[in-house]
Amino acid sequence: MDIEELAGKLAAGDRRALARAITLVESRRPDHRETATALLQRLAQQGRQALRLGLSGTPGVGKSTFIESFGMMLTGQGLRVAVLAVDPSSARSGGSILGDKTRMERLSRDPGAFIRPSPSQSQLGGVARRTREAVALCEAAGFDVVLIETVGVGQSETMVAQLSDLFLLLLAPAGGDELQGVKRGIMEMADLILVNKADGDLKPAAMRTCADYAGALRLLRRRPQDPEGFPKAMCVSALEEAGLEAAWNEMRALADWRREAGVFAAVRAQQARFWFAEEVRQGLLAALETGAAKLRMEALAGQVAEGRMTPALAAREMLALLGAEAGQGALPPSG
Amino acid sequence: MDIEELAGKLAAGDRRALARAITLVESRRPDHRETATALLQRLAQQGRQALRLGLSGTPGVGKSTFIESFGMMLTGQGLRVAVLAVDPSSARSGGSILGDKTRMERLSRDPGAFIRPSPSQSQLGGVARRTREAVALCEAAGFDVVLIETVGVGQSETMVAQLSDLFLLLLAPAGGDELQGVKRGIMEMADLILVNKADGDLKPAAMRTCADYAGALRLLRRRPQDPEGFPKAMCVSALEEAGLEAAWNEMRALADWRREAGVFAAVRAQQARFWFAEEVRQGLLAALETGAAKLRMEALAGQVAEGRMTPALAAREMLALLGAEAGQGALPPSG
Repeated sequence: MDIEELAGKLAAGDRRALARAITLVESRRPDHRETATALLQRLAQQGRQALRLGLSGTPGVGKSTFIESFGMMLTGQGLRVAVLAVDPSSARSGGSILGDKTRMERLSRDPGAFIRPSPSQSQLGGVARRTREAVALCEAAGFDVVLIETVGVGQSETMVAQLSDLFLLLLAPAGGDELQGVKRGIMEMADLILVNKADGDLKPAAMRTCADYAGALRLLRRRPQDPEGFPKAMCVSALEEAGLEAAWNEMRALADWRREAGVFAAVRAQQARFWFAEEVRQGLLAALETGAAKLRMEALAGQVAEGRMTPALAAREMLALLGAEAGQGALPPSG
Repeated sequence: MDIEELAGKLAAGDRRALARAITLVESRRPDHRETATALLQRLAQQGRQALRLGLSGTPGVGKSTFIESFGMMLTGQGLRVAVLAVDPSSARSGGSILGDKTRMERLSRDPGAFIRPSPSQSQLGGVARRTREAVALCEAAGFDVVLIETVGVGQSETMVAQLSDLFLLLLAPAGGDELQGVKRGIMEMADLILVNKADGDLKPAAMRTCADYAGALRLLRRRPQDPEGFPKAMCVSALEEAGLEAAWNEMRALADWRREAGVFAAVRAQQARFWFAEEVRQGLLAALETGAAKLRMEALAGQVAEGRMTPALAAREMLALLGAEAGQGALPPSG
């Protein structure tokens, strides 16, 4: 694949080129990785930026309906919207790709929208790293908003927060006055809590839930860089398409505020550092699985299994071979 | 510290020597680590074995009371019992060490028992690796049973299962007929489910809960190596010291069965492999935090933060410096 040609098509907003480029960054083949790295470096020079919105919500809160209604509202304003997913648990198949598109049928047919399911790696870190590169590709292709959705499982929210400019938490109305099992730490990450299903019979419950969360958010320490009133809880109805513009206005206001305060760029820089370190860590570990290192690992593991060496002693030998003894860097002194 | 002397005192069952040796393996100082590695290797030759029991249970199920009653029952039979903990969240202080001993006051005064709180590292992997070495020290000191307790949070059960010959799950009687939020995968790991508080008013609820779990366990595939009827659910009352001997008999029966089937040793060998690989992985990552590698990481991260390099390109450069390019082992070809 020719990088110049692909970059050109991407810059022109060609959706098939975008899909091909994402497939390229998701590939594990070393030559593909090399091409992907070169492509990303080339595109980074363009400096196009989208607003990156992270969205978390457990199954049942109406996430697909929300993304569809919210996305249609944005494309109705002439904005181009990409939807990506971070879902390490999804057993990816032709069926589930279809699934992602059928559960957002209208949006998937919208020429202003692009929907891409989660990459198929089983490790959360791998999924998130490749999604980060897909975000960069969507930006290069001129998308204005990139929505990165995740289901509220394990550490995936933390990863998505590291990919996002703003982090949205979608909730359903709660039955009573309890805060519905939102995991500790997730509420702290949210810039905007959206209580969905504020329609029909559920409207009163939604408003109560929203008030509960608004109260809880006031107890959290406001981020020093943010204006009064954030993080904020709001009611929306994805079904009746109500409250979506108001929510969008809040998102834009918060993003603008952060841009002016210089926080927006600073957070992106910190995130880039994070993903660099993550990529190095994972690359280093992957090197244990190939070539001479793999053979040596297997030989030492055999000695450990037979009880001839303790795990600690065998690890010490392996690390010495790798030039990574305790207290030394992994680089040779001349490095 | 003289290794020979320490090893000798350990073999004689000296508890102060045991405490000192555990402090040694928990230390992060490179010279301590070296001594610890040598000590562990030396002790491994002795071949003393305890029965390693992993125990998980969320707060409120009566874990401390259970450990105290169960431990006293064992020491009453002339067995020596060590209690270790894997709790990465514990903010360790003089207070909480005291806490661990005061919540098991009788057991901590028992000359046949040894109680040690969780090591103070913040990373679960580090806590578990050092606990594994503490288990080996307890075995060398002639303990018959090593209980490794953890609170049911995050991945700590998985780690404790990798440290244990048998994995016990302690539960409280449930209110209704629901299986109380036991995380997926935990029940699958349990060899024995113990429903505690089968006393007083709660006895009927405990018996119902036990029956529910017994039913649920029958739906799980039996491990091919285990006898009919395992995994098993039983009622106990730590408070009234009821059912503890029956539970202990089941544990011994299962352990004996596995020993005869050769499974006991095979699982330990697999666990040793796991901890070897884990030690290598963590050692490799730690090397990024020191010396020349650390300086280079910081320089590249600066370029990434300023947008002059993508995370992918910078990571590629760093991995090349470390000799860990994609598709190659981390060892030089001559290695």
